[in-house]
Amino acid sequence: MDNWLTYFMTETLGTMLLIVLGNGVVANIVLKNTKGNNGGWIAITAGWSFAVMLGATVSVALGGDAHLNPAVTMAMIVNGWESNVGHFGLIPIMLVGQILGAIVGQIIVDLFYIKHIHQTITEKEEGLVLAIHSTGPTYKNTFINCFCEFIGTSVLLVAIMATSAQFTDAGWMGPIFVGLAVFAIGLSLGGTTGYAINPVRDLAPRLVHQFLPVKGKGSSDWKYSWIPVVAPLLAGCVIGALFLIKT
Amino acid sequence: MDNWLTYFMTETLGTMLLIVLGNGVVANIVLKNTKGNNGGWIAITAGWSFAVMLGATVSVALGGDAHLNPAVTMAMIVNGWESNVGHFGLIPIMLVGQILGAIVGQIIVDLFYIKHIHQTITEKEEGLVLAIHSTGPTYKNTFINCFCEFIGTSVLLVAIMATSAQFTDAGWMGPIFVGLAVFAIGLSLGGTTGYAINPVRDLAPRLVHQFLPVKGKGSSDWKYSWIPVVAPLLAGCVIGALFLIKT
Amino acid sequence: MDNWLTYFMTETLGTMLLIVLGNGVVANIVLKNTKGNNGGWIAITAGWSFAVMLGATVSVALGGDAHLNPAVTMAMIVNGWESNVGHFGLIPIMLVGQILGAIVGQIIVDLFYIKHIHQTITEKEEGLVLAIHSTGPTYKNTFINCFCEFIGTSVLLVAIMATSAQFTDAGWMGPIFVGLAVFAIGLSLGGTTGYAINPVRDLAPRLVHQFLPVKGKGSSDWKYSWIPVVAPLLAGCVIGALFLIKT
Amino acid sequence: MDNWLTYFMTETLGTMLLIVLGNGVVANIVLKNTKGNNGGWIAITAGWSFAVMLGATVSVALGGDAHLNPAVTMAMIVNGWESNVGHFGLIPIMLVGQILGAIVGQIIVDLFYIKHIHQTITEKEEGLVLAIHSTGPTYKNTFINCFCEFIGTSVLLVAIMATSAQFTDAGWMGPIFVGLAVFAIGLSLGGTTGYAINPVRDLAPRLVHQFLPVKGKGSSDWKYSWIPVVAPLLAGCVIGALFLIKT
Repeated sequence: MDNWLTYFMTETLGTMLLIVLGNGVVANIVLKNTKGNNGGWIAITAGWSFAVMLGATVSVALGGDAHLNPAVTMAMIVNGWESNVGHFGLIPIMLVGQILGAIVGQIIVDLFYIKHIHQTITEKEEGLVLAIHSTGPTYKNTFINCFCEFIGTSVLLVAIMATSAQFTDAGWMGPIFVGLAVFAIGLSLGGTTGYAINPVRDLAPRLVHQFLPVKGKGSSDWKYSWIPVVAPLLAGCVIGALFLIKT
Repeated sequence: MDNWLTYFMTETLGTMLLIVLGNGVVANIVLKNTKGNNGGWIAITAGWSFAVMLGATVSVALGGDAHLNPAVTMAMIVNGWESNVGHFGLIPIMLVGQILGAIVGQIIVDLFYIKHIHQTITEKEEGLVLAIHSTGPTYKNTFINCFCEFIGTSVLLVAIMATSAQFTDAGWMGPIFVGLAVFAIGLSLGGTTGYAINPVRDLAPRLVHQFLPVKGKGSSDWKYSWIPVVAPLLAGCVIGALFLIKT
Repeated sequence: MDNWLTYFMTETLGTMLLIVLGNGVVANIVLKNTKGNNGGWIAITAGWSFAVMLGATVSVALGGDAHLNPAVTMAMIVNGWESNVGHFGLIPIMLVGQILGAIVGQIIVDLFYIKHIHQTITEKEEGLVLAIHSTGPTYKNTFINCFCEFIGTSVLLVAIMATSAQFTDAGWMGPIFVGLAVFAIGLSLGGTTGYAINPVRDLAPRLVHQFLPVKGKGSSDWKYSWIPVVAPLLAGCVIGALFLIKT
Repeated sequence: MDNWLTYFMTETLGTMLLIVLGNGVVANIVLKNTKGNNGGWIAITAGWSFAVMLGATVSVALGGDAHLNPAVTMAMIVNGWESNVGHFGLIPIMLVGQILGAIVGQIIVDLFYIKHIHQTITEKEEGLVLAIHSTGPTYKNTFINCFCEFIGTSVLLVAIMATSAQFTDAGWMGPIFVGLAVFAIGLSLGGTTGYAINPVRDLAPRLVHQFLPVKGKGSSDWKYSWIPVVAPLLAGCVIGALFLIKT
């Protein structure tokens, strides 16, 4: 396949897997009457970790770079990715792939758990329907919420930048390590804003929620939506720049 | 050993391990008075994940291909397995091995937990006796149930097809990765139909349930039984064909 | 170091780690007032899994064979270990190391958790004090109990024999895989007898329990003690013999 | 970068990650109103395990030795680290890096979870605020508490010393194995004193707690603070000396 098509396909497929498995586990744990209902925070964080492992492994195996996250792309650009492996023309292609994959993935999740979405709304827990799409904070506070998303994303990017530059095995261990990093971030730094740490992972499902033709689904909370976009991208700039020192 | 005997033996042994450990963990978590009773969805999904890791690792170590699942075999056939590594004559041999292994494995589970099966029936929870054999949906709906089993199996097959073609280490990491994929599918996509994602894993234990000489064991729910057979095989056809594009 | 001394030291140290961590996790989860109290079956099985990983990795790293279990030694002997890597004179040396390591390890666990042992006895739960030493069945039935220990040990030995003969990496992945096998066995086959699957792991701590100078500690249940010794050794004979066919 | 600067930076960054993720998971599980509240001991021990994996992997990837713990440094010194890879002048540099990293990491945790710290104090659970900084025992008893910290640290150091000397892969598997060891220690030996097993991990956050400008935060328990410093260092001396025999 042509280089640009490979990047487009692997970003689309990888991000689709990320959202199907990532928001799938949230649905299984928080929606009513599911088999995993009330399965605990460790099940949610394990599920998201494996979602990253699978999405990234499949994307890498098919010849892609497995960003699956504009914050990662941003860090790579700032760090000189363009001059090393890519060219700027790929960026919009990857971004469109990420958004498309996330939207399709979220539609699959919504159809998969549709009976349980209805049941959850019947039990007056419509807040949980948004939770299987996008993140939301325990306490709304612009500075603290931004700080939390900035720190969570920074830990992810440090883990990626430090190892991708130094360790050669890009096959099995790279994606598994990044998945472990996401497991760690979820357990340790997911307690306040729910660790979006990825603009597309939060924004695209929120769009799907906005257009979801389900009665009583509740608000899409657009007021909060800019924080999980801006803070991770800012972390991408900062960590990408910091790793310039290294070289 | 002759090639066909190796395939037969490794499929039988691997599928037996898969069912002993897979339905074993369900028995330990859902039956009454066991040491793992009420251990949660993460314990069930971890147990099934390790069941796949062990069954597949042992099968590969003994020279087999470790399908352990007709949906995998189907995807391989559609993708051109015959012309690459096998010949069609092996297919019935592998299938018989899978069915035989699953039946023997299930009989071991039933004998292993027989005291707890009786106790569970005494407490009028006979539905749990079927649950340690075969899957069942939270809401019966032909289209949604088929969709769920189709998507779950597709994620498994994408994980297998993408990596088996590209990554060389067929020793430790291949089966561990496939086990992680099953962990992910269980956590994220097991919440509705209980993720059969394997015709033999569902049908053979249901047969054993049908003939189980235990009073009050309840229905074997044959009406649902075709879905976890047809939907995974369909996913095998579709994903196997999709990966033809890659080559 | 001389060959026999290496075998003695690595079996002693490895089995000590196995018991310190293995019965340590049981103590942390079941004894009263601990930080891990009531942590669930998955915590116990994870702890035992990591106990095997650590004990085996350290033993292998220091030049040993990391049996840590007479059932493994038995399978190796029957399978022709003597003519391949060892000689029969090593067997009593390894066995003494295993027993010594288990006894010292158990004394460390008892001292470590002594305050909690007293508290547990005060709350009239003396059965839990035996549980941090040795296994016991949910239903006493000689045939079923033997069957369960036989099957559990057989799964362990199949995992070891199949991979040790075929896969070369004896460094990191071997012990991690065996630890995963023990995790699987605990989750899936630990629900009835508590998966001793190792004569020394059960017998040596029971001896320590017998001589434990703590008032009100309860019975050491010697009547049951032969089953977790005989059934695992029998599995060692059978699986060791079965793998002779392979060669 | 100069050798000493690399050591300083990697110890600082690694220890910062260790504390951000390690005490972050405690905050997420024990503080009030968090998303992970009441997530169980296995979540805490998993989080600390991944904290070690990430901190150590990143530190190693950037060219450091990834001690992140004066007890490890002590064991290395006693074992002859100076004559092999380092020189004594690096020790104060590494120590300052560890302390600085831990202080900065703890400040990040406190700011990250500040709303939840306030909520926890409002609910009169100020003991939990100290718990997200430093360890404390279930029963205060100088000998037993020292014994527990000594044994826990010793298991960690045996795992590190045995494998670092023998196994060559210092990339992915080394830090993952050490993280698994910390998981094991937490599950099995964390039940009494809360497994500090690292002087800096306990002392530096306690200092931050002392100066934390939050009303009603409760005592910093300085009376206990020497035990998680002295016992781990003593273990460093003993295990470092024991491994001299090996060579």
